[in-house]
Amino acid sequence: MRIAIDAMGGDYAPKEIVLGTVSAAKELPNTTFLLYGDQNQINPFFEEDRDFNNIEVIHTEEKIEMDEDPVRAVRRKKDASMVMAAYDVKEGKADGLFSAGNTGALLAAGLLVIGRIPGIDRPALMINMPVISPESSKDSFIMLDVGANAETKAINLEQYATFGSFYASHVKGIDNPTVALLSNGTEANKGNELIKEAHKTIREDETVNFIGNVESRDLLEGIADVVISDGFTGNAVLKSIEGTAMSLVNLLKDTVQEAGVSGKIGAGLLKTGLSDMRSQLDYSKHGGGILIGVKAPVLKTHGTADAEAVFNTLLQLNSILESGMTADLNEKFSLDKA
Amino acid sequence: MRIAIDAMGGDYAPKEIVLGTVSAAKELPNTTFLLYGDQNQINPFFEEDRDFNNIEVIHTEEKIEMDEDPVRAVRRKKDASMVMAAYDVKEGKADGLFSAGNTGALLAAGLLVIGRIPGIDRPALMINMPVISPESSKDSFIMLDVGANAETKAINLEQYATFGSFYASHVKGIDNPTVALLSNGTEANKGNELIKEAHKTIREDETVNFIGNVESRDLLEGIADVVISDGFTGNAVLKSIEGTAMSLVNLLKDTVQEAGVSGKIGAGLLKTGLSDMRSQLDYSKHGGGILIGVKAPVLKTHGTADAEAVFNTLLQLNSILESGMTADLNEKFSLDKA
Repeated sequence: MRIAIDAMGGDYAPKEIVLGTVSAAKELPNTTFLLYGDQNQINPFFEEDRDFNNIEVIHTEEKIEMDEDPVRAVRRKKDASMVMAAYDVKEGKADGLFSAGNTGALLAAGLLVIGRIPGIDRPALMINMPVISPESSKDSFIMLDVGANAETKAINLEQYATFGSFYASHVKGIDNPTVALLSNGTEANKGNELIKEAHKTIREDETVNFIGNVESRDLLEGIADVVISDGFTGNAVLKSIEGTAMSLVNLLKDTVQEAGVSGKIGAGLLKTGLSDMRSQLDYSKHGGGILIGVKAPVLKTHGTADAEAVFNTLLQLNSILESGMTADLNEKFSLDKA
Repeated sequence: MRIAIDAMGGDYAPKEIVLGTVSAAKELPNTTFLLYGDQNQINPFFEEDRDFNNIEVIHTEEKIEMDEDPVRAVRRKKDASMVMAAYDVKEGKADGLFSAGNTGALLAAGLLVIGRIPGIDRPALMINMPVISPESSKDSFIMLDVGANAETKAINLEQYATFGSFYASHVKGIDNPTVALLSNGTEANKGNELIKEAHKTIREDETVNFIGNVESRDLLEGIADVVISDGFTGNAVLKSIEGTAMSLVNLLKDTVQEAGVSGKIGAGLLKTGLSDMRSQLDYSKHGGGILIGVKAPVLKTHGTADAEAVFNTLLQLNSILESGMTADLNEKFSLDKA
């Protein structure tokens, strides 16, 4: 396997990207990691510690900034680290793409450079979310689309159900994964016109283990292995969960601080609660966002990703590659088309 | 003022509804509270404690169940406590309606029995949400639509901006309240077609203090006085916030329990954190859900509401009535129409 890495994308690039890549290269000696970016900035982070030969640096001085217009940047900056990496994936020189940079540009690179699998109308952005419930046997669930598409048709939701099922079965090893549709009520007749139409067609798809509608209130309880949603709502739900978690963690931090010296013993336990909470909410443990439906997997992490998040996401990308998911998706949709 | 109350709606009806009403009747001696429901079940809860004369009981033995089809129930069960109360509001015998019962039925009673204000296309469900941020001077913000309409047009979002502004200025006393539009990015060009169209028209409305798009991640930080959203997304966001908060509170509760005897001192502080969190998240402190855009205010609380939640929501309903908001909305939309 060969993984193309945009070494220059993200708030802490290239340092954290390179350090995460070095850890991944040690963990996965049979995978080659291609670092695209400025060699003068990249090399210092692993020169002294080079007891492995599965990292290659592809030098380029251009990169895409976080605030650039995504489509324009991808079209014009052919020598940007992210775009060069995407072209090498397109040309088969690498099998998958990773970046912590401009998300819109990465989606554009996936769609415009690497391209859709034939038969797939719209790729989706998928994320592996934590389950926060002592009663659930799951530790995570998959949600998609969390924002690749602002406009969604029923055919897209139908295809997302297959994408999610394939990821759950191939990469997470879940047998006959359950798939649910995000709506404003659990009954089959709940939802807007889009959701009601999609509900009917997904219900008829015998290759999907569809368990019906779910409400966003129940997501973190681990109600399904895969939750599908239109990209606008999925994006809003993901950011609501993030925002609520962040506000509550901050509230608890304030309680710890206010306790001051007199509450030191108690504060210890409170800190345990706080760190439990943070650890459970830590997305990076569960990997990054996956653009699924393109000819090769494209993975992103938050712009603020550290080496550990980069490491986890690279391992996830390697697992996707080893699982053969993309080839099977390709076969499935080519067959459907035929 | 006269407030019509469905005494039979909610999981703990009529007890908690009656006890909450009794507290409100003592607090607001100049408002009359009309309790609709079975007098044999209602009377025992306040007979011994009747040092006030502003509660009247309107007897009926019929009621709407939580799982009934809303529209059918409202159309057929004319003698149900909720429906009788709605007809009395329609006929001017009462000024506002309260229920903790079947939400769909209450919305249907508002729309079909009490009716829309002329010129208003779709009433919306509005909620006063807690702000959870030490940096914010706000303790709450208004969000609408959180689920009255699964399908939304740009004209609806435009009108919601006015509804929210009127509530913020009239009831909460906020001068020139800020209004934001929920989208998948803060830039003006972000969103689906609906949101982009609404953004433009709201931007042109000089009566609204529009501050642009917000993401759901920032809602609890108190980013705006009023956040408007299509009903499908708003519902999903509200339930995501509720679900995330509930999961985290449960996680923290487990930490307290696991601490056991050895952690007793620490657990005290953790409990403080937990109770801070619960108190900040307690919606009922901030009142109930408001159906706005109908000829008289219709308020709901959760089906699990206790007497305190009922009391707070009745006080909120009384404030709305005293503020003259509905009359001003009526005037505004009649003028727009003329």
